[in-house]
Amino acid sequence: MTRRTGRRPSAAQLRRDASKGSAAGGIEGGRFQPLSKQQTTEIIDSAYGLLENTGLSEAPDFVTERVCDAGGRIHQNRLLFPRELVEALIHQAPSGFTLYGRQEIHDLDLSGHRVHLGTGGAAPMILDAETGQYRRSTLKDLYEAARLVDSLQHIHFLSRPLVAGDMPDELALDVNTAYACLAATTKHVATSASNGSTAQQVANLCFEVAGAAELFQQRPFLSLNVNHVVPPMRMSEDAMEVLQVAAENGLPAHCNVFAQVGASTPVNFAAAIAQTLAEALAGMVFSWIINPEAKVICGPKPMIVDLRTGAMSGGGGEQAVVMAAAAQVARSLGLPNVSIAGASDSKTPDIQSGAEKALAVTLAAQAGSNLVTQACGMHAGLMGVSLESYVLDNDMLGSVMSSLQPFDTDDMQMEAVHVAVTEGDGHFLGDEATLERMNSDFVYPEIANRTDFQTWQEQNQPQQIDIARDEVNKVLAKDPVSLIPPEVDQQIRTKFDIRLEC
Amino acid sequence: MTRRTGRRPSAAQLRRDASKGSAAGGIEGGRFQPLSKQQTTEIIDSAYGLLENTGLSEAPDFVTERVCDAGGRIHQNRLLFPRELVEALIHQAPSGFTLYGRQEIHDLDLSGHRVHLGTGGAAPMILDAETGQYRRSTLKDLYEAARLVDSLQHIHFLSRPLVAGDMPDELALDVNTAYACLAATTKHVATSASNGSTAQQVANLCFEVAGAAELFQQRPFLSLNVNHVVPPMRMSEDAMEVLQVAAENGLPAHCNVFAQVGASTPVNFAAAIAQTLAEALAGMVFSWIINPEAKVICGPKPMIVDLRTGAMSGGGGEQAVVMAAAAQVARSLGLPNVSIAGASDSKTPDIQSGAEKALAVTLAAQAGSNLVTQACGMHAGLMGVSLESYVLDNDMLGSVMSSLQPFDTDDMQMEAVHVAVTEGDGHFLGDEATLERMNSDFVYPEIANRTDFQTWQEQNQPQQIDIARDEVNKVLAKDPVSLIPPEVDQQIRTKFDIRLEC
Repeated sequence: MTRRTGRRPSAAQLRRDASKGSAAGGIEGGRFQPLSKQQTTEIIDSAYGLLENTGLSEAPDFVTERVCDAGGRIHQNRLLFPRELVEALIHQAPSGFTLYGRQEIHDLDLSGHRVHLGTGGAAPMILDAETGQYRRSTLKDLYEAARLVDSLQHIHFLSRPLVAGDMPDELALDVNTAYACLAATTKHVATSASNGSTAQQVANLCFEVAGAAELFQQRPFLSLNVNHVVPPMRMSEDAMEVLQVAAENGLPAHCNVFAQVGASTPVNFAAAIAQTLAEALAGMVFSWIINPEAKVICGPKPMIVDLRTGAMSGGGGEQAVVMAAAAQVARSLGLPNVSIAGASDSKTPDIQSGAEKALAVTLAAQAGSNLVTQACGMHAGLMGVSLESYVLDNDMLGSVMSSLQPFDTDDMQMEAVHVAVTEGDGHFLGDEATLERMNSDFVYPEIANRTDFQTWQEQNQPQQIDIARDEVNKVLAKDPVSLIPPEVDQQIRTKFDIRLEC
Repeated sequence: MTRRTGRRPSAAQLRRDASKGSAAGGIEGGRFQPLSKQQTTEIIDSAYGLLENTGLSEAPDFVTERVCDAGGRIHQNRLLFPRELVEALIHQAPSGFTLYGRQEIHDLDLSGHRVHLGTGGAAPMILDAETGQYRRSTLKDLYEAARLVDSLQHIHFLSRPLVAGDMPDELALDVNTAYACLAATTKHVATSASNGSTAQQVANLCFEVAGAAELFQQRPFLSLNVNHVVPPMRMSEDAMEVLQVAAENGLPAHCNVFAQVGASTPVNFAAAIAQTLAEALAGMVFSWIINPEAKVICGPKPMIVDLRTGAMSGGGGEQAVVMAAAAQVARSLGLPNVSIAGASDSKTPDIQSGAEKALAVTLAAQAGSNLVTQACGMHAGLMGVSLESYVLDNDMLGSVMSSLQPFDTDDMQMEAVHVAVTEGDGHFLGDEATLERMNSDFVYPEIANRTDFQTWQEQNQPQQIDIARDEVNKVLAKDPVSLIPPEVDQQIRTKFDIRLEC
């Protein structure tokens, strides 16, 4: 096992980052360690054991050939990955790299335990603000969600949260999904592709936006979410194709394994992490074999099932701590990590939504997960999105980021206490330090209400959901201006079947 | 500095505790450590420095005499506590002790990082469910809140949350507050007293309930919340009297320091912790001088102020992490600790309430705070209580407790994965381990909604607040049966001015 932690910025630097200036997050987590070192080692050893002795079924030929050339082997139709192969590749891989935005301020530094919070998912439904009912989501919904996310300070990246349910086929879906995201935000975009062929088209679209393949590869501003394994331990041919295209074209890839604890993994949480880690590593190893410099992100995602009903249930404390532990394990291998947190079971932006999301996002962030997806906007066990929730959850994400800020024991100025009580006026309100830190050490919410109860009553008890709806309407009422320059956009529309008008 | 951590139960034991059987909490936290060891030492050294060199003003004569006899000294009208005195007393004090319930199932073991969640505060207002408006709270409200708390599984103790605003004087207030709590629940009760004289009456009331002073002292089921210092560094004479009465009568005392960061402490969070720790220790030291076996709990409580308005604002990430760090420091001294978390700025049980409470309670619990007060029910910056919120927050507390559960790497059964994919049916749903852990490893919510969105819509979108209101009404509709036996109750009513009918 290799342990390669990233450089640690100074406390003062981190404190400054924690203030409003840092649009893309990046404060160090890692102070929450749900697993002991011994437990982390045991889980990693178990993952290596699975890769070496159990391996993956249904590996496509193009995978088997490359992996066996590199030292893998086939046994009873399963592709086995010897430990020394996996360890060697992990060791040579970049321990931290950057996911780029189309503006530098949105760059995401995935080194160490630096934390970034964003959207995510593939919800087929959206909570319609007009009717209060869930309905199928469309490309327009995706575009609007992405525009909204672009406006929200504490959402650091856009991972495609909604399925454009009105697209006629996989190619149109994948290309238009990427296009809608890139048209709406300059934050880093993560999206997905149905197979190698559509992945190549998404790559080509990115090259057009960047101006050339090389320009994109210098600052890849789009990455691919790949679910390359169907747990337990079975490869998905289409998704492995996507990994290959990503590695060959310089698209970063999230090697996600979305597994159901007690259903597609053992019920023991440690075992579930070990299995999903093994599954994630299978894709990463393949990517590194194709391209030793491939930017791949480790995404073991053991999801909790309510075993009374068999339904996924991401809102409880078990989900929060399991995902945090999975992030801890990935980071202990020196691998950039991606998590899911915020998969609330609530159907609407209510107290349950707030509590479930805050618990999960807090633990993932404090554990030092580099990318926390589904951190906002999601409902109904990832089946639905609420635009109002993005606005409301944005405050929660700001608070989580502020809870990451480091303490500053280098500048405690304890003599100020002595002075205040012996010769001063017995308080600290006008102190220079107070005025200075008032802006650097605190994150102030946008929607969350901090008035006293009298004021709240005099204002007729403003409700969070109403304020959020107004904010959504305000953002979307602005003329949509595509963030893809017109001349580039024109080129793209001649080459691709773009179905979004903006 | 002494470091004395409590005994550590086995992982399996902890896992069992995490399940529903453990009514009084007590799972080990401590996996979140916001401060490095070095920082913890610096903060403790700073606290010792303040006690030794700055000391406290307005120490009453009865305090000065006892402390100076033990080695303290007076300098320029301030009472100084030499470091060797403080360290020696910390060293001899019990590192962990039990706060008792009137039933054993409610005992709270404050050793190590064992976590218990409860109510707290002194809110003058209650959110009236009928009118939707805040109004002054009464003794009846307190009694009803206590009855409700008695019914809620994840609220482990009752710290008086509401002020009985209809009491005519301090004595009636203090005695009736204690009485109403003890009549409504057998969980451990924490309440307060206005001065030494009323504290003695509260003690006498407890002795009556227990049958005799000695019986109470064997299992003290009521403790006193004491705010013995007015920050910065000034003693409260009335509250120091309360500490004396508590130490002499065997009542455990919470040595709380409720300070406002940037107003009554320096704005630097580490300095705020150091100051409030020094202030808390001043009361603890006095208690130990009176009675070396005094059960005193360390409660440094630096509260965040929104420095733009000067109003207390307990809902942000700064509050969450500062309180968690204060708990870490207290536990690193081997002292039982009490925190405030859940001081939401929300005025009603909405998404803000859920998010703010979950963030703060999660970090306090993961840091291993022994008692987390104000963890439920509070609104408007501790100014108001909502009964519905107790019911709703109870689910959140259950989830936080489940996120404390330890991982079990001793029983990973990784061979089950190999079997499932090579000879089994490719899933784990019917496995013995799945069925066994389904009940031991998961906490299921009471109110939080886990149905899918279709079911939710078919059921006309049930709202959390309505379900909570029904639950409150159901509990309170039951005939109130005093948990003080009739013959004891009769005795009490002859000796004390009891104003509660039940």
